[in-house]
Amino acid sequence: MSGQTGTIWGVGLGPGDPDLMSVRADRLVRTARHVAFFRKAGRAGRARTIVKDILHPEAVDIPMEYPVTTEIPLDDPRYAACLSGFYAEVTARLRDLALSGEDVVVLCEGDPFFYGSFMHLYTRLKDDVPVRVVPAITGMSAAWTATGLPVTWGDDVLTVLLGTMPEAELTRRMGDSDAIVVMKVGRNLPKVRDALQAAGKLDRAWLVECASMADERSVPLAEAGDRAAPYFSIVIVHGQGRRP
Amino acid sequence: MSGQTGTIWGVGLGPGDPDLMSVRADRLVRTARHVAFFRKAGRAGRARTIVKDILHPEAVDIPMEYPVTTEIPLDDPRYAACLSGFYAEVTARLRDLALSGEDVVVLCEGDPFFYGSFMHLYTRLKDDVPVRVVPAITGMSAAWTATGLPVTWGDDVLTVLLGTMPEAELTRRMGDSDAIVVMKVGRNLPKVRDALQAAGKLDRAWLVECASMADERSVPLAEAGDRAAPYFSIVIVHGQGRRP
Repeated sequence: MSGQTGTIWGVGLGPGDPDLMSVRADRLVRTARHVAFFRKAGRAGRARTIVKDILHPEAVDIPMEYPVTTEIPLDDPRYAACLSGFYAEVTARLRDLALSGEDVVVLCEGDPFFYGSFMHLYTRLKDDVPVRVVPAITGMSAAWTATGLPVTWGDDVLTVLLGTMPEAELTRRMGDSDAIVVMKVGRNLPKVRDALQAAGKLDRAWLVECASMADERSVPLAEAGDRAAPYFSIVIVHGQGRRP
Repeated sequence: MSGQTGTIWGVGLGPGDPDLMSVRADRLVRTARHVAFFRKAGRAGRARTIVKDILHPEAVDIPMEYPVTTEIPLDDPRYAACLSGFYAEVTARLRDLALSGEDVVVLCEGDPFFYGSFMHLYTRLKDDVPVRVVPAITGMSAAWTATGLPVTWGDDVLTVLLGTMPEAELTRRMGDSDAIVVMKVGRNLPKVRDALQAAGKLDRAWLVECASMADERSVPLAEAGDRAAPYFSIVIVHGQGRRP
């Protein structure tokens, strides 16, 4: 019966503008009959929203609603246990669909293997059913493009950091890199700003919100003020390497 | 006359498979009448080859042939002077086309603002004529996807290094990062391997050649043997971060 097993597709949608999806992702999404996606309870889901205008009229939604968001600290063992149970539950459903012969497209924001949630499904499914992954334009590519400045020149080192990291570690790593990307900025923006200041790079940093989308905003971080940044905001420091 | 000025488009083509171009890039390339691309003298050009089957029949090629490759050392002032003259010459041609009202699509391998050659045209053109950039899937995204393993989990730090860097610096930075990408491997492969060994990460490293293309090859680096790797080979070390 293995010839009739369906495939689980982890399809990267890119940074948010449907026009920046790959040709392959666009085709897979348009023809999908089963469309799975993560979302917070009560929300439409960012990934689902990106493709809302191109889904097949008969496509069946499979929302996967996170059981926790911020109620339990990340380092609490209950957090991992709760998420682990959730992933087991949703992968069981996807596995059953594949074993019954159905293909499933899992909509993934950004690139599935780069800080994505899909990888938690992938590791639980790949030994049981065919799983294929379609890479995508990362949010950080859209962010540095939005600044209108190239991010790496010549032999520039690029370091990708997370706003969730301790400030001292952010400062140390920022000081030791040519080009910098900080993901998951959001409420961590004041800490990220302080770390850049301590590393002597605040004056070269940019804040990019909603890269590639209608409400894209790209400003020098020093001019950004104290407003709260959306969770998916990205901070960019451009390299200054060799340029003939 | 400014309303009649054409636009220079820096269009990222992604890692090499035309199916991984963005919907926007695909549309721009298919409809382009002037198509510029870098290549080495005597070669078809990698970027031009990626799109050969989708170009409009009336598209006019504008090959931009590098005047130097490896004859002059990178750190020789003559290298920068030679390249600088070359960039001035080709940008003059593109600027004239735009000022005469023509749009030009510049074909860019990978993502234009990430270690790309387009940025050298961009900085010379952007104050004179409209220039727009289309981000793309990076070669490194295709490379980690080819390994079948997610590259970053949770709060993993990712460092992007160049095989051209000194071995001691490679070793130091490899030891200080969770996930690692090494670009421009090629003839530097033995040095990269030694640096990974010294950093204690050789057993976790993968070598990916021709990611996303028909001759894609992904193997654990320790099993790759001593064969020369293509210039665009990429080495990946996956992060081991939080995973519920």
